[in-house]
Amino acid sequence: MTIRLDYSNMIATSVAGGLKAPSWTRSAKEFRSTHAEVQKLVASGALGFFGLPTDRRLLQQTIRYSAEVEGRYDDVVILGIGGSALGPIALRTALRPYSWNAIASAQRSGFPRLHVLDNVDPETIGALLDRLDLARTLFVVTSKSGGTAETMAQFLIVRERLAKAAGGWTGQNTVFVTDPEKGALRPVARKEDIDALEIPANVGGRFSVLSPVGLLPAALIGIDVAAMLAGAEDMRVRCETNVLAKNPAGCFAMLQWMADRKLKKNIHVLMPYSDSLRDLADWFVQLWAESLGKIQPDGTSVGPTPLAALGATDQHSQVQLFMEGPKDKTVTFIAVRNRAVDLSIPAAYPEVPELSYLGGHSLAELIGVEQRATAGALAARGRPNMTIEIDRVDPWHVGGLIMLFQIATAYAGHLYGIDAFNQPGVELGKQFAYAQLGRADAEGARREWDALPKPDPRWQV
Amino acid sequence: MTIRLDYSNMIATSVAGGLKAPSWTRSAKEFRSTHAEVQKLVASGALGFFGLPTDRRLLQQTIRYSAEVEGRYDDVVILGIGGSALGPIALRTALRPYSWNAIASAQRSGFPRLHVLDNVDPETIGALLDRLDLARTLFVVTSKSGGTAETMAQFLIVRERLAKAAGGWTGQNTVFVTDPEKGALRPVARKEDIDALEIPANVGGRFSVLSPVGLLPAALIGIDVAAMLAGAEDMRVRCETNVLAKNPAGCFAMLQWMADRKLKKNIHVLMPYSDSLRDLADWFVQLWAESLGKIQPDGTSVGPTPLAALGATDQHSQVQLFMEGPKDKTVTFIAVRNRAVDLSIPAAYPEVPELSYLGGHSLAELIGVEQRATAGALAARGRPNMTIEIDRVDPWHVGGLIMLFQIATAYAGHLYGIDAFNQPGVELGKQFAYAQLGRADAEGARREWDALPKPDPRWQV
Repeated sequence: MTIRLDYSNMIATSVAGGLKAPSWTRSAKEFRSTHAEVQKLVASGALGFFGLPTDRRLLQQTIRYSAEVEGRYDDVVILGIGGSALGPIALRTALRPYSWNAIASAQRSGFPRLHVLDNVDPETIGALLDRLDLARTLFVVTSKSGGTAETMAQFLIVRERLAKAAGGWTGQNTVFVTDPEKGALRPVARKEDIDALEIPANVGGRFSVLSPVGLLPAALIGIDVAAMLAGAEDMRVRCETNVLAKNPAGCFAMLQWMADRKLKKNIHVLMPYSDSLRDLADWFVQLWAESLGKIQPDGTSVGPTPLAALGATDQHSQVQLFMEGPKDKTVTFIAVRNRAVDLSIPAAYPEVPELSYLGGHSLAELIGVEQRATAGALAARGRPNMTIEIDRVDPWHVGGLIMLFQIATAYAGHLYGIDAFNQPGVELGKQFAYAQLGRADAEGARREWDALPKPDPRWQV
Repeated sequence: MTIRLDYSNMIATSVAGGLKAPSWTRSAKEFRSTHAEVQKLVASGALGFFGLPTDRRLLQQTIRYSAEVEGRYDDVVILGIGGSALGPIALRTALRPYSWNAIASAQRSGFPRLHVLDNVDPETIGALLDRLDLARTLFVVTSKSGGTAETMAQFLIVRERLAKAAGGWTGQNTVFVTDPEKGALRPVARKEDIDALEIPANVGGRFSVLSPVGLLPAALIGIDVAAMLAGAEDMRVRCETNVLAKNPAGCFAMLQWMADRKLKKNIHVLMPYSDSLRDLADWFVQLWAESLGKIQPDGTSVGPTPLAALGATDQHSQVQLFMEGPKDKTVTFIAVRNRAVDLSIPAAYPEVPELSYLGGHSLAELIGVEQRATAGALAARGRPNMTIEIDRVDPWHVGGLIMLFQIATAYAGHLYGIDAFNQPGVELGKQFAYAQLGRADAEGARREWDALPKPDPRWQV
C-alpha cells in the first residue's frame, strides 16, 4: 500500500518547458525553511488537522454515535455547504458503490442513503424533503460557527418539518457537528439536548474532512473510517522529513509554486482517471482555491487557480485546451493501479478498423493506457505534468491523498507568503447579503451596498 | 419569456478595472466584421448548428422514434463521451426533477431513467450493467465518426451482454446516433438493421446538443424538445443583427475576448445560481475550452480557460479566489427570476442572531440575494462580472442559453483568430493510445511513443 508521485514530466530533463533540474534541486534548501515554519505552526497547535488521524477521542465519538443509530435510518441528510459538504460528497463517491443513493438497500448492505444539501436552491431541497420518510431520516447539521446562512436556513426549514411530522420539536432525528464550545449551534444543542459531535477549534472547514465533519457521514454509510485515518497518518509521517525529495506533500507544493512563479503556470489541473475520485477533485479545488487565493501583506493578489478534470472523459472536453492553449497550466493525474472490477472488451467486427483493435483488451487497461497516452502527449508538446499513482481506491489510499493535499496546502501557503487558513475575501459578499436580508448588525454594509453603481441600461441586452 | 444579459459590471463606468466605455463602444465596428465572417460560414453551410432549431426533419425523426418506443423501457443508457454525453447530462439535470434516476417511476410520469456512460471506468460500467434489466433497457450509441475508442469499447461490451441475455445478437434494444453517411457505425447499422438517427455532417460534437444527440435522450425522458428548439430559434434570430449592442451572443463573446486581450482576464467563470443548471456549466466548459484553446496559424497558443462554478455553493469554495486572487478572471452569473418551488424559512430562536434574521425570508429570496451580493462584492473590489438572467429554468430558456453560448463561440473563434470547429490537439494522445493498444495504423505514433523520456527515478517520491 503506497502513494507514489512521479514528477519526471515536470522537470526539463524530460519535458521541454519544465523546471530546470538545478533550480529544482536548489529548491530543497528553500523547502527546509518552509517545512520548519509549518512545523512551528503545528507545534503551536494552530494546525489541528495534523492531529486528526491519531485523535482517538473524535474517532470513538464518531463510531459510538454511528453504532448507536445503526439500523434506525434509511436516509442521512447533511445540512452544510463548502467544507462541510465537499468532504462527505467526495468520500461517498470514492468509497461507496457507484450511484449509492439510487441502489437498493440490500446493495447498500442496509446502510442508509447519504444526501448532501450543499446549496439553498428551493427546488432541490423541496424535492428531497418531500420524498423522505422523515421518521427514518437523520439530519446532520454541520457548521463550525453556526453562522453559515445557507446551513442555518436549511436547518430552520428541516426543524419545522420534523416538528410538524412528530407533533412537536424535541430535537429528534438531528445531530450537530460543530465547535466544542463556541458558535451558535452549541448553546442550542445544550438547551434542546441535541447530540453534537465536535469540530476541534483549531480545525478549519476545508481541513475538516478527517474530523467528524467527514468521519460521521462516512461511518454512517459503512466506510471504514479507521483505515482512512491510518492512511492519512501514514502520509503525515512521510511528510515529517524536511528533505524535499522524500516529502510527497513538499514536492507537490514546491512543484506547483515554482511552476507558477518561474513558468507562469498558475492554473493547476487535478485529473483523476477514476469516476470514484471525481468529487475528490472538487474537494481539492476548494482546498487549493480558498486557501491560496489571497492578498499578500503588501497588497499583491496571488494564488493559483485549481481546475478539476476527469479522465478519460475530459480528453473529449478540456484536454484540447491543455494541449494547445496558453502554456499556463500544470496537470496532475491520479492513476489507479488496480481496479476492483474489470470488464474485458469482446472482439467483434474484424472488418471495421475502428472497432476491431479493441477486442481482447479490457476497460481497466484502456483507461490506464489513455492516462499514460495523455501524459505522454502533454510531455511531447512541452506541457509539464505529474502523476500520483495509488494502488487502489480504498479508505487507506483516500485518507492518504487527503492528507497529502492538506499538508501541501500548508506548505504552499508559506511559499505564497499568505495565510492559508482564513478566507477574508468572502466577508463582503456575506455582509451584502445580510444587508439585503435586514440583519441588524449589517448597517455599515448596507450603506456600501446602497452606494454601488446601479445597472446601466446602456450595458444591457 | 426572455434572456437578458446585464454587463454593467464589465464596464469601467461601474467597476474599476472594467473595460473602458469608449473602447467597448468602438468594438461595435470590429464586431460587424466578425459577424459578417460568421454569417459567411453559415451561408456556406459549414455551421450546421445554426439550422438545427428549425430542422423539422430531425425533430420528427426524434419524436417518431421516441413515440415508437414509449413505455417499452425503464432505463435509457447513453454510450458516448464528450459532446455526446455533456449535452444529455445537462438537459436531464436542467429539465427533469432533481435526482431523476433515484426517484420512483410514478414521479417520473413513467418515463425511463437516463444514464450517461461518459467514461470507460470498469467499476462504473460494471455496476450499472449488473443492475439493469437488459430486456427493459435501451442503449443509445452516440458517435458521429464511430471512431471514438471509449464509446466503441462500451458498445462492444453492451452488445455482448445483450446477446447473452437474449440468446443472440439481432441489434435489439439499441439505437445509433451517428453521421448520415460516413463513419464506422453507419455500415453496421445498415448491415444489422439497427435504427440510426442522424447527426448532420456539418454539426460537430460539441455543437450537437440540439440535434438527435441531445434531442433523443431529452424526448425519451419527456422533455418538451420542440419548446427547447423554439427558445434556441428565438436566440438565433436575436443574433442575426450585426449591431453589437443588440446581439446577446455578440456581447458575450466580445466582452470575454476584450477582457482577455485588454485586461489579461483569461479565466472565464460561468456560475449559475441554480442546481438545475450546474451541468450546463460543464457543457459550456467543453464548448469554450475545446473550441477556443488553439494554436493560431502563426504558432501562438491562445484561448481562455473556462471554469464551472455553482452559486451559492461556491461562495464557500472558489469565491475567495475570485475576490482576492489574481485579477485574471471574469465571472458570468446565471440568475433565475422565478423558481418552480419556493420554501419559506420559519422564524425561530429569536435570541440567536445567527438564526433570527433568516425567519420570514424564503430560499428563493436567499439564493437571489446571495447572487446579487456576490456580484456586488466582486464589483466593489474591481472584479468585472456580468449576469445572464432568465425567467425560469424551462426548455425554452435552456434552448436559448445553449444557442447563446454556441453562437458566442463562433464569434469568439473569429476574434481569437482560430478555427473553433476542430480539435487537432487531442490527436496525439489518441495516437499514443492506439500505439499502446496495438492498432495496426499507429506505427508512426508508436515510434514517437517509444522515444519519449522514461520516468526518472530521481523525480519520484
